[in-house]
Amino acid sequence: VPICQTSRGGMAGGVRSAKLGFLAWLCFSTLGATLGAKVLVVPVDGSHWLSMKLLVKELIVRGHDVVLLEPETTALGKGLVGCRNEIYPVSYTKEELGNVLKQLQENVFIKLPKITDAYVNVQRLIDYTSIHVKGCENLLYNQEVMGRLRLEGFDVVLTDPFLPCGSILAETLSVPVVYFLRGLPCGLDEIGTQCPSPPSYVPRFYSGHSDTMTFPQRVKNMVMYGIESVSCRIMYASFDELASRYLEKDISYKDLVRRGAIWLLRYDFAFLFPKPMMPNMVLIGGINCAKPSPLSAHLEEFVDGSGDDGFIVFTLGSMVDKMPADMTIAFLDAFKKIPQRVVWRHTGILPEDVPENVKIMKWLPQNDLLAHPKAKLFLTHGGSHGIYEGICHGVPMVMMPLFGDQPDNVDYMVARGVAVVIDVFDVTTEKVLEAINKVVNDTSYKEKMVNLMSVHQDHAVKPLDLAVFWTEFVVRHQGADHLRPAAHNLNWIQYHSLDTLCLLAAIVMTIAFLGLKCCCFCGRKCCVRVAKKKKVL
Amino acid sequence: VPICQTSRGGMAGGVRSAKLGFLAWLCFSTLGATLGAKVLVVPVDGSHWLSMKLLVKELIVRGHDVVLLEPETTALGKGLVGCRNEIYPVSYTKEELGNVLKQLQENVFIKLPKITDAYVNVQRLIDYTSIHVKGCENLLYNQEVMGRLRLEGFDVVLTDPFLPCGSILAETLSVPVVYFLRGLPCGLDEIGTQCPSPPSYVPRFYSGHSDTMTFPQRVKNMVMYGIESVSCRIMYASFDELASRYLEKDISYKDLVRRGAIWLLRYDFAFLFPKPMMPNMVLIGGINCAKPSPLSAHLEEFVDGSGDDGFIVFTLGSMVDKMPADMTIAFLDAFKKIPQRVVWRHTGILPEDVPENVKIMKWLPQNDLLAHPKAKLFLTHGGSHGIYEGICHGVPMVMMPLFGDQPDNVDYMVARGVAVVIDVFDVTTEKVLEAINKVVNDTSYKEKMVNLMSVHQDHAVKPLDLAVFWTEFVVRHQGADHLRPAAHNLNWIQYHSLDTLCLLAAIVMTIAFLGLKCCCFCGRKCCVRVAKKKKVL
Repeated sequence: VPICQTSRGGMAGGVRSAKLGFLAWLCFSTLGATLGAKVLVVPVDGSHWLSMKLLVKELIVRGHDVVLLEPETTALGKGLVGCRNEIYPVSYTKEELGNVLKQLQENVFIKLPKITDAYVNVQRLIDYTSIHVKGCENLLYNQEVMGRLRLEGFDVVLTDPFLPCGSILAETLSVPVVYFLRGLPCGLDEIGTQCPSPPSYVPRFYSGHSDTMTFPQRVKNMVMYGIESVSCRIMYASFDELASRYLEKDISYKDLVRRGAIWLLRYDFAFLFPKPMMPNMVLIGGINCAKPSPLSAHLEEFVDGSGDDGFIVFTLGSMVDKMPADMTIAFLDAFKKIPQRVVWRHTGILPEDVPENVKIMKWLPQNDLLAHPKAKLFLTHGGSHGIYEGICHGVPMVMMPLFGDQPDNVDYMVARGVAVVIDVFDVTTEKVLEAINKVVNDTSYKEKMVNLMSVHQDHAVKPLDLAVFWTEFVVRHQGADHLRPAAHNLNWIQYHSLDTLCLLAAIVMTIAFLGLKCCCFCGRKCCVRVAKKKKVL
Repeated sequence: VPICQTSRGGMAGGVRSAKLGFLAWLCFSTLGATLGAKVLVVPVDGSHWLSMKLLVKELIVRGHDVVLLEPETTALGKGLVGCRNEIYPVSYTKEELGNVLKQLQENVFIKLPKITDAYVNVQRLIDYTSIHVKGCENLLYNQEVMGRLRLEGFDVVLTDPFLPCGSILAETLSVPVVYFLRGLPCGLDEIGTQCPSPPSYVPRFYSGHSDTMTFPQRVKNMVMYGIESVSCRIMYASFDELASRYLEKDISYKDLVRRGAIWLLRYDFAFLFPKPMMPNMVLIGGINCAKPSPLSAHLEEFVDGSGDDGFIVFTLGSMVDKMPADMTIAFLDAFKKIPQRVVWRHTGILPEDVPENVKIMKWLPQNDLLAHPKAKLFLTHGGSHGIYEGICHGVPMVMMPLFGDQPDNVDYMVARGVAVVIDVFDVTTEKVLEAINKVVNDTSYKEKMVNLMSVHQDHAVKPLDLAVFWTEFVVRHQGADHLRPAAHNLNWIQYHSLDTLCLLAAIVMTIAFLGLKCCCFCGRKCCVRVAKKKKVL
C-alpha cells in the first residue's frame, strides 16, 4: 500500500509542503522508508549503467514504481524484473552506434603525440556523446512518448548527467532530479554543485598529479583549470543547443545541471584524495561491490589449483574487444614465466600456444574472482568499477589505463602505493613481468591495499542504502532545497569576491595615496621652514 | 571482552597498521562495533558539556573504558555511571570561577555602543577562557596526574577544542583526537579543517548576514573575514603560549587544532546555511534532541489546561541567573494580555502579582515541554541546544539573543522565517506582545518550522549513532588519515595559488609586452619604408 505516495493536488504551496513534510516525517520515522514513489530512470549505456542498475533494482525491491526510459538501440532493461520500460525510437541504427564504439575501442591502442592527446580525447568524447544527443532529441520531440511521460506524474528523475536527456526531462516535467555519476568532464560536476576545488591541492582531471604537487605542477594544474572552462563550452555545445531549443529559453547545460537536488557520487576517499564537498554531494563509492557469489566448478578448480602462488585476474573492461596481436603475445610470454595462474577476459585472436597457467574467457565474474582468497593481483585498465572491486577485496593492481577517467584513476592508485602502471603503448614481456613481480613480491602493495580496504569498508551506512535513502529523501521533501547553496545565485566575479576585493583595494590605495600626499606636503612644509630658518640665520 | 582493543606493541609501522586495519575491518564487519577502547574525555564546562555528555554516556553503554578528566572546581562527572573520573587540582577557587561567570551573566544586559560591542565580546571570551587556560596549565605540569594518564595507553581523545587542554594532551600522548563542537571563534574550525568558506555567501560570525547578501554586506563580510585573522592571534595568544611552552616547540594552537582526526559538528543545514564541508567534518546537529519523557503531574496539568491556545516555553538558558527587574515586569505585563499559558524558567527576584497563566520554575524540562502537543511558542535566548530542541519538535520561536553565538543563531532562524527577534536592550510590553502574537497568529512560522523539522529529522543515521560511529572509526584506524586534505601542507600563499597566479600573470604580461614591442617595431619599419617610398616618389 503506497502510504506515503505524494499526490499532486491543488493545495497552496506553503501549506501543502508543510503538511506533506510533516506527513513524510511521520511516515519515515514510523515506516523507515517512502513507499510507492514514481521514479523515472534515464540511464547512460555501457559501464555507466553497471552501478546505477544496482540502485534501480533496489528501488524496485523497495516497492517503487520505476519507469526505465531507453532508446531502442540498447537493451538496458533486459533482466530488470519489476520495472516498466519506455522505449523510444531513434534516428540512428544499432550499426551506427556500434561503429562509434568500435572506433573508440580501436583508437585506444594507437599512440598519439602528447600535444594532441588531450585534444583527441575531447574529440572522442564529443563523437561518442553526439550520437546520444541525437537520440535525446528524438525522444524530446516524440509527442507520443513525451505525452505519456507527462501523464505519469513522476516524483523524481534519476539520471546520469553524462548525457543531457535526464536533466532536460526533469526540467520540462518540473520534477526534482537525482544525479548518479563518477564525475563529469571539465569539472562540470564542481560547477553544478558549486563545490570549491582549490587547484593548489585538488589535481585536475587528466593532469597526472596527486594532491601533493611541486610548484611547476601547481602551475600546470592552474593552467589546466583555466583551459577546462574554455573546453567546457566546446564539449557541451550540443547539449547547450538542445536544451535552449527544446526548453525555449536561453539556458546552458551548465545552468541546467545546477538544479540537481542530490549528487550520488561513485567515489570516496579511499580512492580520491580528500577535497572539499558540498552538502548535497553523497559519496557512494564501492556501491558496485556486491557480495561475491561462488565460482563455477571449473573456474573454482582452476583458481584453487594455483596453490600458494595464487592467481591473477586480467581484464581490460567491456569496451575493449580486440587487443593488438603483438601485445597479446607480450602478455602471454610474460605469463609463461610466472608461477601464478591467470584468468584472462580476452575476446580477440589468440596464438595457438597459450600456456597452461592461463585460462582465457569471453567474460569473467570479476567481483567473485577478486573475492577469492587466492587472488594475488588484478591486471586492469583502471575503470572505476574494477578499482572499487579491487579495493573491496584488498587485491593490489597492475594497471594499464586506456582512456577517459582511467589514467587519472590509475594515478590515484599508484600514488597510494597499491598499484604499478604499464604504458599501453610500451607493452613488452619484460615490462609486464617486472610489474607483476614487483606487486606480488613487495608486500607493501598488499598491506597498503588492505589498509585502503579497511577504511573503505568501514561505513556507517552501506553505499547502496545511502543511495536509496537520498533518492527517497528527494521524494519525501520534493527536492533537497535546504542543501542548495546560495552560491548558485552569484556570478563568477561575485562568487570569487573580485568586486569586493577591487573596492577594498581601491579604498586602501586611495588612503595610501592621500597619506603619501599628506606626508609629502608636510615634508615640503618642513623643508621650506628649515630653508627659511637657514636663510634667516 | 575487548576483542578489538588495540595493543601498543612494537611491530613495524606499515605491517602493524595493515594487519590491525584488516583485523579492525573484520571486527567491524562481524561485530558492527569496536569494543573496549580506551577513551580520554577532556570536556568544557557549561552548555558545551550538555551534548557531549550524551556521546560520552553512549560510549560507556557500548562498553568503552572512558576516563573523564576534570578540574576540581567542576562536577561534570556527577551522575555519569560507568566511567572513571580523573580530577586534578587547580590554582583558582570555585569562587573565582563563579565571579568570572557572574561578570559574564551581568554584562549581557548592559548595552554597549555598537563600535565597542565586538571588542567587548572578544574581551569577555578571553576573560572566560583565560581562567581555564590556567587550569589546563595546572594539569599539564602536574607530574602525578600526567604520569597516570601516560600509563593508560588511550586509543582516542574526545574533546571540545574551545579550550586547548584536550588538543595539547592528544599531542603529548600521541593519540588521535576527535573534536566535538558547535564552532570556534574567528573561524578557527575552518582553518583547522582547511574548509573553504567563500565570504561571498558564507556569512561570517557576528556579521548578522544570511547567505544572500547585498554588495555592501559582502564588503562588510569580507572585511570581517580579514579582521578575524588578526583577532585570532589575540584571542588564542594564551593557548599558543601554553602549547609552545609545554610541548617545547614553536607551535600555535591553530597548527595544533589541525591535527583533529574527526570534527563532530553540532549543526546541520536545517539550522546553518549550506556551505562547503571537508570529508572529516561530521554533522551531528540535533544530537541533544532526546526522546521526551512524560512531564510531572503538576506541570502536565498546567500545560494541558491551556486548551486550544496552548502554552509558551520561556527560558534564557543556564547562564542567566538574574534578569533586570524592569525587564521581568515588561514580560509579565505582556503575559497578562495573552491567552496562552507560560512556563518560565526564572531564578531572580519577582514582583508579587505574577499572573495566573504564568508558572515560574527554577529549572524546567525544556525538551519535554517543547515536545508537548500544546507547545505553541518557544521564547529563548537562541543557544544552539534550545534551537535544535525547537526544530526537533517543530515549535516556532521568539528569540532574544544575549552573547556568544546566539546573535548569529537567531539571525539564521529569522532568515528561515521560523522566528521573530526581540532586542534585549529594548524590551517593552508592546514589543514582547507584538512578537508573540506575530508568531502565534501568522501560521507561516509554524509551517516553516514543521518543514525544517521534517528535513532535520530525516536522517540516514541518527546524530548520536553517527558520533559514536566516527569516534570508534578513529579507534579502529588509529585516526582518519585518509580524510586529511593535503591543504594542511601548504602555506597561505600556496593554498590560494597566489604564487602560481603571479607567475602566470608575469608570463602573460611579458608576452603582451613583447607583442606590443614587436608591433611597434614593425609599425615603425613600415612607416620608415612608406616614408622612404614617398621620398623616392
